Amino acid sequence: MRYLTAGESHGKQLTTIIEGVPSHLPITQEQINDSLRRRQGGHGRGKRMQIEKDTADMTGGIRHGYTLGSPISLVIHNDDFKHWTDIMGEDPFPEGKNIRRTVSRPRPGHADLNGGMKYGHRDLRNVLERSSARETAARVAAGAVAKVMLEELGIKVAGYVREIAGIVSPFDESMSIEERIEKSHASPVNTLDDETTEEMKKAIDDAKKDGDSIGGVAEVYVEGMPAGLGSYVQYDKKLDAKIGFSVMSINAFKGVEFGIGFEAAKRNGSEVHDEIGWDEERGYYRKTNRLGGFEGGMTTGMPIVVKGVMKPIPTLYKPLQSVDIESKEPFSASIERSDSCAVPAASVVMEHVVAFEIAKAISEEFPSDYFPRLKEALDNYREEVRNF
Amino acid sequence: MRYLTAGESHGKQLTTIIEGVPSHLPITQEQINDSLRRRQGGHGRGKRMQIEKDTADMTGGIRHGYTLGSPISLVIHNDDFKHWTDIMGEDPFPEGKNIRRTVSRPRPGHADLNGGMKYGHRDLRNVLERSSARETAARVAAGAVAKVMLEELGIKVAGYVREIAGIVSPFDESMSIEERIEKSHASPVNTLDDETTEEMKKAIDDAKKDGDSIGGVAEVYVEGMPAGLGSYVQYDKKLDAKIGFSVMSINAFKGVEFGIGFEAAKRNGSEVHDEIGWDEERGYYRKTNRLGGFEGGMTTGMPIVVKGVMKPIPTLYKPLQSVDIESKEPFSASIERSDSCAVPAASVVMEHVVAFEIAKAISEEFPSDYFPRLKEALDNYREEVRNF
Amino acid sequence: MRYLTAGESHGKQLTTIIEGVPSHLPITQEQINDSLRRRQGGHGRGKRMQIEKDTADMTGGIRHGYTLGSPISLVIHNDDFKHWTDIMGEDPFPEGKNIRRTVSRPRPGHADLNGGMKYGHRDLRNVLERSSARETAARVAAGAVAKVMLEELGIKVAGYVREIAGIVSPFDESMSIEERIEKSHASPVNTLDDETTEEMKKAIDDAKKDGDSIGGVAEVYVEGMPAGLGSYVQYDKKLDAKIGFSVMSINAFKGVEFGIGFEAAKRNGSEVHDEIGWDEERGYYRKTNRLGGFEGGMTTGMPIVVKGVMKPIPTLYKPLQSVDIESKEPFSASIERSDSCAVPAASVVMEHVVAFEIAKAISEEFPSDYFPRLKEALDNYREEVRNF
Amino acid sequence: MRYLTAGESHGKQLTTIIEGVPSHLPITQEQINDSLRRRQGGHGRGKRMQIEKDTADMTGGIRHGYTLGSPISLVIHNDDFKHWTDIMGEDPFPEGKNIRRTVSRPRPGHADLNGGMKYGHRDLRNVLERSSARETAARVAAGAVAKVMLEELGIKVAGYVREIAGIVSPFDESMSIEERIEKSHASPVNTLDDETTEEMKKAIDDAKKDGDSIGGVAEVYVEGMPAGLGSYVQYDKKLDAKIGFSVMSINAFKGVEFGIGFEAAKRNGSEVHDEIGWDEERGYYRKTNRLGGFEGGMTTGMPIVVKGVMKPIPTLYKPLQSVDIESKEPFSASIERSDSCAVPAASVVMEHVVAFEIAKAISEEFPSDYFPRLKEALDNYREEVRNF
Repeated sequence: MRYLTAGESHGKQLTTIIEGVPSHLPITQEQINDSLRRRQGGHGRGKRMQIEKDTADMTGGIRHGYTLGSPISLVIHNDDFKHWTDIMGEDPFPEGKNIRRTVSRPRPGHADLNGGMKYGHRDLRNVLERSSARETAARVAAGAVAKVMLEELGIKVAGYVREIAGIVSPFDESMSIEERIEKSHASPVNTLDDETTEEMKKAIDDAKKDGDSIGGVAEVYVEGMPAGLGSYVQYDKKLDAKIGFSVMSINAFKGVEFGIGFEAAKRNGSEVHDEIGWDEERGYYRKTNRLGGFEGGMTTGMPIVVKGVMKPIPTLYKPLQSVDIESKEPFSASIERSDSCAVPAASVVMEHVVAFEIAKAISEEFPSDYFPRLKEALDNYREEVRNF
Repeated sequence: MRYLTAGESHGKQLTTIIEGVPSHLPITQEQINDSLRRRQGGHGRGKRMQIEKDTADMTGGIRHGYTLGSPISLVIHNDDFKHWTDIMGEDPFPEGKNIRRTVSRPRPGHADLNGGMKYGHRDLRNVLERSSARETAARVAAGAVAKVMLEELGIKVAGYVREIAGIVSPFDESMSIEERIEKSHASPVNTLDDETTEEMKKAIDDAKKDGDSIGGVAEVYVEGMPAGLGSYVQYDKKLDAKIGFSVMSINAFKGVEFGIGFEAAKRNGSEVHDEIGWDEERGYYRKTNRLGGFEGGMTTGMPIVVKGVMKPIPTLYKPLQSVDIESKEPFSASIERSDSCAVPAASVVMEHVVAFEIAKAISEEFPSDYFPRLKEALDNYREEVRNF
Repeated sequence: MRYLTAGESHGKQLTTIIEGVPSHLPITQEQINDSLRRRQGGHGRGKRMQIEKDTADMTGGIRHGYTLGSPISLVIHNDDFKHWTDIMGEDPFPEGKNIRRTVSRPRPGHADLNGGMKYGHRDLRNVLERSSARETAARVAAGAVAKVMLEELGIKVAGYVREIAGIVSPFDESMSIEERIEKSHASPVNTLDDETTEEMKKAIDDAKKDGDSIGGVAEVYVEGMPAGLGSYVQYDKKLDAKIGFSVMSINAFKGVEFGIGFEAAKRNGSEVHDEIGWDEERGYYRKTNRLGGFEGGMTTGMPIVVKGVMKPIPTLYKPLQSVDIESKEPFSASIERSDSCAVPAASVVMEHVVAFEIAKAISEEFPSDYFPRLKEALDNYREEVRNF
Repeated sequence: MRYLTAGESHGKQLTTIIEGVPSHLPITQEQINDSLRRRQGGHGRGKRMQIEKDTADMTGGIRHGYTLGSPISLVIHNDDFKHWTDIMGEDPFPEGKNIRRTVSRPRPGHADLNGGMKYGHRDLRNVLERSSARETAARVAAGAVAKVMLEELGIKVAGYVREIAGIVSPFDESMSIEERIEKSHASPVNTLDDETTEEMKKAIDDAKKDGDSIGGVAEVYVEGMPAGLGSYVQYDKKLDAKIGFSVMSINAFKGVEFGIGFEAAKRNGSEVHDEIGWDEERGYYRKTNRLGGFEGGMTTGMPIVVKGVMKPIPTLYKPLQSVDIESKEPFSASIERSDSCAVPAASVVMEHVVAFEIAKAISEEFPSDYFPRLKEALDNYREEVRNF
C-alpha cells in the first residue's frame, strides 16, 4: 500500500490516490466521512472548520460498496474555491492585472521562508497553500481506508490527546480500547478524562484570549496486532521506525516515542523490559507493556502505544518578529484567522497515519490482493504464533 | 544514496554496500576505521569490545584514495570466527552431531521471541545473531563515508551523550561544534562536561555491580546545512521525518525529538517558534533554534539538533522472567557477557546514521555523480539562498 | 518524479497525481489537452472515441500558468458516467436488485481471467474496467507534463507508427525530428510516409470488415539528450532498461528494442557499434546511431530510438474460444464495440511514457526543485560534456 | 527481495547482498557455484574465463545449509587481484609514481566515454572496471539463490541460446523443460539442437579468426508459474515489464520480447491470442501460448517465454574508429583480450536475472518470511485458482 496526495489549501480540491488495497473489502463513503468529520472537530478550532464540511467523493477503485483492488481515488472538494478562483486559478494570469493576497512576509515556524528559497517562490502563498495542515485531510482519507481494513482484521486503532499546554491527562493504563475510543469521542478536546477535558478547554480559551497558541501530546493505541510484524533483519524494515516516520511527517510534530519512551533514559533495565509469560490459551504474552508493543523493530503482540508531540501552531495573534523578503524590513508576523490549539485534531490525524502504516505493513507481509485471502492468512498466522 | 548491510554477530564478517556516492571524493580506510574505533570505545563496555578491533576492508568502489562512483563495499572481518565455525558455519550440519549453543530461551527486550515466531526459528540463535547491535558497526561504516562527504561540503556532524540514567549533562547551547566534538571525544562516556562524565562513569559502574543496565539520551548536532533541504510537498519528503526514521531504526532506541521536542507540549507558541532575522552578510537567520533546524520538513539553515533515547540494554545480569519455548517452563533470563550501558557507543552510531541521511538528502537534491560538480552546485545554491 | 493513476473505464473519472515536477515551469491546460486529443485520433478508432472528448482538469499543483513544485493532479472526467451510475456506482448495491452487465466470460488476450483469479472477482467487469486501455489517457496526461518540461530544456520527443500488419513505413533516417512530428501529425495513422498511410488505412479497414484486428510497431525518437544520463554502476540504474520497462508496461505491448534491436543478432560487431568522432564545435559524437542512443545504460548524446510492438487488440469481432467461469461451458468470445487497430493511438501513448521516463531521469540527476535552477545546471553540464 | 552488487572487474572481489529471502530455505554453496560455472562456460570464451574459477563464499545469512531470513551476502574473490594491487589498490597513490594501464581511449559500444563524462573520469579504467560484464557474475549469484527458491516451489527456469549471428536454432515448442535444460547444458553454445550447435561453433570460430564479434538471441522459459502474478492495476506492477526491465539491464542487451513478440505486428488478432480452455483436472488453460505466458501484465499459468537480444561484444580485434580524450586524435579502438561471442554466457545470465524477478514477485505477493509458510500459501493459491 502506498498513497500520494495533491491539492492546495484554497485550491479546487484535495486528492488522494491509494494503491494496493485488497479487493473485496466492504467500505462506504460514510466511514471515510466519519474520519474527516472527527478531524474537523475539537474545542478551539478557528472559523475555517465551519466553512469546510469535508466529505470524500469516491472517484475510483470502489464499486457497489466494495474495493476493486484497483487504486482508490478520493476527492475532498473545497466549496470555498469559488471565492478564490482569481487568486488560485490555474490559467495564466491576465497581463496588467495584479494578483491579490500575495505574501512576502514569511511566518516563523512555517515552511514559508525555507520553501520560498527552495522552490524559488517570491510569492510565499505558493508555499503556504501546500504546506498548510489542510493537507492532513487527504491523509486522514487514506488512513480511513486503512482503518476499515484493520477493523475487518480485528485490529482497533484509537487516537486521543494525552497532554495540552502541560496539562497531562491521568488515565488508567488498563482502560480498554473501546473505552478509550468512547471517551475520547465524547470529549471536545479528544482526551480520556472529564476533569482534564475542562482544564484543557480553559487552557485553549486562555491561549486564544492571549493571542497565543499551545501544543501538546497525542497518543495512538493499537490493539489486536499479531506478533512479528516488521523486522530486525535490515534497518529499514523496522516497523516502529516506519510508524515513527509517519508520525514525524505530520505537520508541526517535533518528536515521537514508543511506550515509556524518553522515560527509559531514567530507569534501570530491570524496570524497563517486559517479562515474558505463557499460558495455554493466550500463548506468549508480556506481563507489562513499557516498550509499547515493539521489540527488535517487530510487534510483540501487545498493544502498540506511540506518542507524538505537536508544537503550538505558529500562526499567532501574538506576533513574532520576521523579515519581509522584498524590503528586507523587519515586521511582526501577520495575523491570520487561526486556531489557538490544534492538538485534538492532530490526534485524529496521527491515529490515521499510524493506521495506514500498520495496514501497509500487513499488506506487505501477507497476501494482499483479495481481502478474504488476506484475512485467512492472518488468522492462520495468529494461530501459528499462538502455538509457537 | 542507499545501503544494505549483511552479516551475523558471530559470523564471518559484516558487509556493507553503499550505492550512489559521487565519484572523486577523497577517502581513506583510516577515516572509516576512526569511526569504527569510536563506536567501540566508551566506559563500561563488556569484554567483547576488546576481542573485536573493527577495521573496514575496502573491497569495491574506491581506487587510489578516491571514490569511483561505483558502489562501495566495506567488510568488517570477525577475527573470532575461527572459534565459531561449527556453530555458525554455512554448510549443512553433519547428521548425528548436535549443534552447540542453541537458544530456546527468549530474552525479554530482545528480538528473540518475535523473531522466532516470524521466521519460524526454534533455535533463537538464528534471530539474535542478526538482531544483535553488532550490526551497527556496518551502519557506522556507511555513515563514515557519508561523514567524509559532508566534511568536504563544509557540513560537520557531532554526536554525544546528553543523559545517562537520569544524569543530564548541563551544557552551553552556544558551544561551537568543534568544541562539542573535542570534548565528547575526550570523555570516556562521550559527553560534553567533565563533572557529568565522572557521575555517568559512576552510574555505569554501579549498574554493573548491581547486575543492572541503564539507558540514556544521545544528541546529534549538524552545522553547515543549507536551508531548504527536505520538502513539505509530500509527507514522505520531510527530512526531519527521514532522520527520525533512521534514529528510530537504531537498536534499542525508543524515541526521537528535534530541538526542544516534547518540551514544546508545555510552552506557549511565542516561546517555541524562532524569530526570523536578516542581515547583509548572513542573509536570513533564526534568532533562536528551538525547532532544531527544521520548519515544514525542511532545514532552516540553523544547526540540526536531534535527540534519541536508548533504553537500557536488555541483556541483564539481574534476571527477568521469561519462558522456554520448548518446555514452556518459566525461567530467569540467561546471563550473557554484556555491557551495562551502551549509550556512549549509541551516540556514535546515531551520529553516523544521521550523517548518512543528510548526505542522502543532498545527493538527491543536487547533482551527485561527480563530487566537484556537486560541491559547486551546493555552493551556488548557498549563494542563491543568501541572496533570496 | 513519480505518478499514480486511478479510475475505471466507465467510472466517474481518471485521476493522475504527478509528484516531483519542478516549480516555475510554465504550463497550460491546452498543452495537456493537445496530447489527450492526439491519443484519441487515428484512423479506425471505434465509436467510443467520439463519445469521449478528453480534457484534463487541473486540480492541484498549478497556479496562474506555472507549476508550484507541489504535486500536480489532473482529472479526466467521463461525461458518459451518467449512463453508468447504477452499473459502476460506489454505494452498496440495493438488495434484491440485479447488477446489469456483469461479465462471466473472460476474453482471450485480456486481463479478465487472470485478474479474476487474482482478485477473486467473479464479475469480470471488476477487472476489465481497470485493465482497459482507457487508463492510458491518464498516463498520457502525466507524459504531457513531462513533455512540456523537456521542451523547455531543448529536448524534443516524437512518437509515430513504423509498421502495421506487416506494412513497414520506409523512411529516411536523417529526417529531422521536426519533420517527423509534422508528418506523423498529418497522417491519420500517425506514420511518416504518405503512401504507407494509405496502405495502412486500407489494412485497418480490411481488418474491420473481416472482424479481425491488427497490431504494429511504434517508434519514439528523442533529440537533444545530454550524454551520460542513466548509469552502469548498478543494474537498476540503466536508463534504457527503465525506458524499456515503461514501454513494456503499455497495454498490449509485447516487446521493445533500441536502435537496430533484434537485428543486432544477425550482424557482425563491426557493423553494430557506432564509431566515435570529435570536432571542436560539437565535441564528441557518434558517426552512426545503430545503438539507438545508449551505451552502458547511459545516453550517448545521439537521438534515442526505441521501438515497441503492440499486439492486435484482443477484442475481436471474429470470435475466439473461451470458457464461461460460472457454467464452465465453452463460448465464442463476446463482441464488444472496438477498434480494429489501436497502433496509431499507442504510438502517442508510447511517446508520452518515454517522455515521462526521460524527464524523471533528468529530475533525478539534476537539481529539480526550481525549474530555472534545473535548466541552468543542465546547460552547464552540456557545456562540460562538450569540453570533456 | 532486492539486491545490490559491488566490485570492479580487476578489483579484490565481487560482492552481492540479497535481502528478503525467506528463512528455512535449504541451500548449499555448490548450488550457487554450479550457476557461476555455467556462466563461465561456452565455446569461444577468451582466456579470462580460464583465469577465473568463480566460486561464491557465503559470508552472511546462511547457517548449517539453511537461509536465516537475514540478508545473504555472497563474495566472489578475484584470485588474480595480486597482479593488480598497484593498478587497482584502494590506498592513495604514492606521489611521483605513475599509474600503469590508464585508459584515455574510449571504445565504441562500451560505457567508456559516456561514463567518463558523467563521473568526470579522465582515466577511463575507472569506468570500464565497473561497466564490465564481469559484474554479471554477482547477478548470477543472486539469481542462483532465487532459482533454489523457485525449484522448491515447483517452478523451473531454463535459459538457452536461440540464435547466434543469424543462425536460428529450430526447435519443437512442445519440448519439455527438462529436455531443454538437459540439451542446453550439453551444448557448448548452450542451444537445444545438435546441428545448430556445430554451425554456431563454426560461426564463433570464424568471427574470432576475422577479428570480429557476433551477437544473438537468448530465451528464458519458465514452467510451473501460478496464474495471476503481477498486476494490471498500476502500470508499475506489470510483471512482464519488470522481467523486461531486468533483461534490458543485462550488459549489451538491446531488446526483449515475450512469446511471438515483434512477430505480433504482422499477424491478425485471431492468430495472436490464446484461446481459453477448461477441464476438471487442470482448471483453466490456454490452447496455445503465443503471448508467452502473460496477459494484462499478469501470468496466465502457461510457461513464460521471453527472448532477449545481445549485440556483438564491442571489444573487437577488428578496430573501430574512436578519439583519444586527451589528444583528441582519432585512433583505432584498442585490442584487448576478448571473447568473440558471449551469447551462451549471456543466456545463463538472463536465466538468472529472470529467475530473480520471478522469485521477487512471489515474495511480494505471498508471505515471505518463513519458507514453509510461503510454500503452503502458494499451494493453497494454486488450488484456489484451479477451482476458480
